[in-house]
Amino acid sequence: MAAVDILKYTTSSPADTTPLSLLENDGYKASDIVAVIGKTEGNGCVNDFSRTLSSHIWESKIPSSAVTVFSGGTEGVLSPHVTFLVRAKEKTGLVACSGVTRDFAAHEVGTEIQSQEVASVISQMIADAGIQKSVVHLVLIKCPLLTSTDIDAIRTEGQIPITTDTYESMALSRYASAVGIALALDEITPDRASAALGPEPGGVWSSRASCSSGAELKNCHIMMLAADPQETQGRLRAASGYMKDAIDAGVILGMLNKIQAENGKVLQVFVKAEADPRGSIRGLRHTMNTDSDIHSTRHARAAVGGLVAGLVGDSAVYVSGGGEGQGPPGGGSLSIVYSV
Amino acid sequence: MAAVDILKYTTSSPADTTPLSLLENDGYKASDIVAVIGKTEGNGCVNDFSRTLSSHIWESKIPSSAVTVFSGGTEGVLSPHVTFLVRAKEKTGLVACSGVTRDFAAHEVGTEIQSQEVASVISQMIADAGIQKSVVHLVLIKCPLLTSTDIDAIRTEGQIPITTDTYESMALSRYASAVGIALALDEITPDRASAALGPEPGGVWSSRASCSSGAELKNCHIMMLAADPQETQGRLRAASGYMKDAIDAGVILGMLNKIQAENGKVLQVFVKAEADPRGSIRGLRHTMNTDSDIHSTRHARAAVGGLVAGLVGDSAVYVSGGGEGQGPPGGGSLSIVYSV
Amino acid sequence: MAAVDILKYTTSSPADTTPLSLLENDGYKASDIVAVIGKTEGNGCVNDFSRTLSSHIWESKIPSSAVTVFSGGTEGVLSPHVTFLVRAKEKTGLVACSGVTRDFAAHEVGTEIQSQEVASVISQMIADAGIQKSVVHLVLIKCPLLTSTDIDAIRTEGQIPITTDTYESMALSRYASAVGIALALDEITPDRASAALGPEPGGVWSSRASCSSGAELKNCHIMMLAADPQETQGRLRAASGYMKDAIDAGVILGMLNKIQAENGKVLQVFVKAEADPRGSIRGLRHTMNTDSDIHSTRHARAAVGGLVAGLVGDSAVYVSGGGEGQGPPGGGSLSIVYSV
Amino acid sequence: MAAVDILKYTTSSPADTTPLSLLENDGYKASDIVAVIGKTEGNGCVNDFSRTLSSHIWESKIPSSAVTVFSGGTEGVLSPHVTFLVRAKEKTGLVACSGVTRDFAAHEVGTEIQSQEVASVISQMIADAGIQKSVVHLVLIKCPLLTSTDIDAIRTEGQIPITTDTYESMALSRYASAVGIALALDEITPDRASAALGPEPGGVWSSRASCSSGAELKNCHIMMLAADPQETQGRLRAASGYMKDAIDAGVILGMLNKIQAENGKVLQVFVKAEADPRGSIRGLRHTMNTDSDIHSTRHARAAVGGLVAGLVGDSAVYVSGGGEGQGPPGGGSLSIVYSV
Repeated sequence: MAAVDILKYTTSSPADTTPLSLLENDGYKASDIVAVIGKTEGNGCVNDFSRTLSSHIWESKIPSSAVTVFSGGTEGVLSPHVTFLVRAKEKTGLVACSGVTRDFAAHEVGTEIQSQEVASVISQMIADAGIQKSVVHLVLIKCPLLTSTDIDAIRTEGQIPITTDTYESMALSRYASAVGIALALDEITPDRASAALGPEPGGVWSSRASCSSGAELKNCHIMMLAADPQETQGRLRAASGYMKDAIDAGVILGMLNKIQAENGKVLQVFVKAEADPRGSIRGLRHTMNTDSDIHSTRHARAAVGGLVAGLVGDSAVYVSGGGEGQGPPGGGSLSIVYSV
Repeated sequence: MAAVDILKYTTSSPADTTPLSLLENDGYKASDIVAVIGKTEGNGCVNDFSRTLSSHIWESKIPSSAVTVFSGGTEGVLSPHVTFLVRAKEKTGLVACSGVTRDFAAHEVGTEIQSQEVASVISQMIADAGIQKSVVHLVLIKCPLLTSTDIDAIRTEGQIPITTDTYESMALSRYASAVGIALALDEITPDRASAALGPEPGGVWSSRASCSSGAELKNCHIMMLAADPQETQGRLRAASGYMKDAIDAGVILGMLNKIQAENGKVLQVFVKAEADPRGSIRGLRHTMNTDSDIHSTRHARAAVGGLVAGLVGDSAVYVSGGGEGQGPPGGGSLSIVYSV
Repeated sequence: MAAVDILKYTTSSPADTTPLSLLENDGYKASDIVAVIGKTEGNGCVNDFSRTLSSHIWESKIPSSAVTVFSGGTEGVLSPHVTFLVRAKEKTGLVACSGVTRDFAAHEVGTEIQSQEVASVISQMIADAGIQKSVVHLVLIKCPLLTSTDIDAIRTEGQIPITTDTYESMALSRYASAVGIALALDEITPDRASAALGPEPGGVWSSRASCSSGAELKNCHIMMLAADPQETQGRLRAASGYMKDAIDAGVILGMLNKIQAENGKVLQVFVKAEADPRGSIRGLRHTMNTDSDIHSTRHARAAVGGLVAGLVGDSAVYVSGGGEGQGPPGGGSLSIVYSV
Repeated sequence: MAAVDILKYTTSSPADTTPLSLLENDGYKASDIVAVIGKTEGNGCVNDFSRTLSSHIWESKIPSSAVTVFSGGTEGVLSPHVTFLVRAKEKTGLVACSGVTRDFAAHEVGTEIQSQEVASVISQMIADAGIQKSVVHLVLIKCPLLTSTDIDAIRTEGQIPITTDTYESMALSRYASAVGIALALDEITPDRASAALGPEPGGVWSSRASCSSGAELKNCHIMMLAADPQETQGRLRAASGYMKDAIDAGVILGMLNKIQAENGKVLQVFVKAEADPRGSIRGLRHTMNTDSDIHSTRHARAAVGGLVAGLVGDSAVYVSGGGEGQGPPGGGSLSIVYSV
């Protein structure tokens, strides 16, 4: 697990690779890249080809060991950008590594098989890194979804698709990934993980998981960020927690106050957003789940993005939609990386 | 101009009139209503029939002297609700009155004619009220738009429509109304108002204007809220200002701190939101104006709604989209009503 | 069961009731109305308030025995309109009647309970009318859906909602209604009806069913149209069949040729449209089920509406989206009413 | 100008290049390609990255002399596909060539400058080919649009953008290209072309133009298809005309009858679709221009696609949205290529 630096650049389109030049100006080479984590300006849903375009263009430019995680959807004030995690020359305070699962068959997507494969790869990554699970701040996963073609193929094979709704397959895949993270980080026990993906899914969550699904891949891309146990006073730090609902300004303000107390400067915020599945926030009805024109993930990214960008004063933040198992229902996991 | 109380209730649908019973439980009758100001859950754009439904249902239940202002769009966390301004039995610290313009012909919508008619009605309202222009906190206007039928009718009359884009007509109508408010409140001079609606419109704004357009009316509904000059220490107060951009948390936090210092409790926030027409916020690109799936007014409401609801801890706030002339470009007018 | 005439008028908005005056000009009174069947210009999905507005406005103007069926969605070339079925003074060749089920509890929507209640009401209507099931051309149903509030209420009662996706609840409700029609018309046996709504729903369809769901009602509105067995040579006739897929021009051209051979004039077309759930049409992939910006029912209405309007030369046709159980998968039931 | 064959293959995604293998199976090499004309499954509007993805992937696989024209939007039944025009070994009856304009500055997009540059390149192509203008069946153009960034850049240069609405810039660019085609084919005189792009644009159209705009290019890609004057009895033929409105089934049926009379088999249909700007079709109101959830180009493609696919019995047809200057208002140019 390498000591890493974190650098962020806005993009002019999903095909924009000028951030690579800027990265070089800032002293790093493409070969230093551990992960490229981007927000692209598509709808973040099934037919979001902005992610595919970015993945396609970036994957030819980075080491084969590196992963890309492109999350679609820059609704509201959010600004498209890429964040690089790069191997640092010396210790920084943060370490990171990346991994991938095997490709999943269509009928495995969103099931316990995906969950267990994710948990297994992460466990191996932690073992290889020789760190404690408790120092892990964030596990970021890009996972597959089901298209109409996939669903039809599952049926042709005589199997029953986990859902026939392509948009819902995104949620199921994110959830299976999140359960895998929770399991690997010992946030839940194996039997709870298994039950969570059974006939009545739900009920389990990780505060360090951030998962997004896309049609551009068949396996899971995994990026893990942790505090460096050998360098607790480094120049880079992270704080983790979770928003308890989509308007939980308090937790963010609390973290920002703590960072300010350390004379810190926020480098990036990673946060998950979702429409509360119960249809209300603090007892007041919201309409994200009954709006048939805009999917709820788009609504949630816009709203939480507005809040986070406003509080941080920066609109190039990583707000990802669809928080199933990634923080409490209606809330979302939250990690802030900062320098001191 | 009557002393007013302000009460807010959430709604279960645009056709929900149970708030009227709740208002009665709280000691007011339908005949006390000066204005019903609601957020409904449509798209807030040309074909938003949630506003029409609400207007239709409410207008039969309130005095003919009262006005309705239904603003569509509860994107993100925003919760559909109605706010009543009701005639209070005794002084409260706030006064309000309502008015209407004549119906506009389709070719007048969005032009200087609309602007001047608005200014004229407001000026008369101020004169009748016998108050200073400086104590006015908020002028809320509901104004018409152009449908395809209107545009075709304008052409049939041999006139040139101000735009052939029905969605753009909403912006032009809001802007004309806002210029009228700025003029009536002496925020601008008549010649600037005239220039602002000339061949190259723009450049003029009021920090106390909040205008929204809809297909459900042909005239302008006007609601004016002011501090009561005869009761400066009343239990109700208002603070006004403007967000300088869509992530301007600072101005809101500043007002909330001031209110807290007075031991105040926020009753309602009125704020305008828009996608910065320059395509960026504090130098970072946003994508609200290039998203052909979701109109920019919807994006802006969701983002600013997320910020305001998070800071206030209440998602039933009045966030209205389309801020042309209602605050600086990319920002928006802001008024908070609170009790002490 | 009354002899009926059929008259169609376009509307300028969902609130437009001028067709009532036109109907009077054409010799009928509001009290003659058996059913008002309209296409309104909303999205035809969960948050379509154009239907609610039309229902609200029309239901105060028609006899309490009459039903309204407002189907949202006039995508593409489709023109908003209302079709009246009115009691005729003398025999016309067509008869019609209307009925309603009891209100359904939220947890009953989309289940076998709905299906059986629908079948029971239709069976009674047929018995009362004293006609053969084989002469029924069309059963049109407006049925309820589940909102977020409904789903939350079901959970609060300790029950499991049939779906947590409000848009999907529309499909389930349409399907339950269609199964009820198929059962009442002896198109299927009771055991098949029961199986069709069991753990793996589907597989059953009626070629004479047309169902649409909406948030504006809790019960089912039912309209039945049949050939008058006592007047087989009347001036009004109907032809029924089904499109085998969404591009089945052949069946329409065949019917139009037959009508032309009788010197007939098309008065109205009732047709169902859906995106083939297998993701392809005649082996070629379509993208209606993977478009996260536009729901598939909107796509299907636009496409089938384009075909039907083109072939008939009239864009005020009744094209309803969501064909579950109403014609074969990917196709839809089809009825044409014409005069000779 | 080369004798060409035309081959069509469906695609599984915008990144799918398996059609190249299929083309090779059918006897042609990538180096034979004159043009790749595709329909991709994005929204066909400003932020359609499916086009960019396809262009990016295909442009590395075809000769530098070849052009790509990717038109986004496969609404309704339309099936994503690519059509190849390839250099044939012997005469076929059809000839084709391709060309490009220079890159346009942002402030030139949609203006007479674009129009004249297009006309100039086409005129040169015709001169080089040594054919009569009258034998040209179709000129297909892919042209640029304005993003927010472009509009801001124009302002920074002190110029006035032709529009500040990015979606509208697509229409203006298509129109300027169409006027260029009409001019080059002598369908209009230079003074009419000039007037058509003046202060009150419009009024001019070509029945052989098909233009689509996208963010993926700065110049115009031009593909011209003509009858081979030296091989009037070849195995490939084309028929051209125009739909007079969006439900003009008659013109299509007429062409299909003629083709059937020649024992022909339809290979591809190229047709333009638009929402009638007057808001009605044959006197009946349509709602495409007042739907703020779905842009009118998407509606029009879905509807005309449904009609054409139904009549031809093939959903992999080239239906392009936005018919400004490409056929009469509300209608669109139409070309059918067939083999005998």
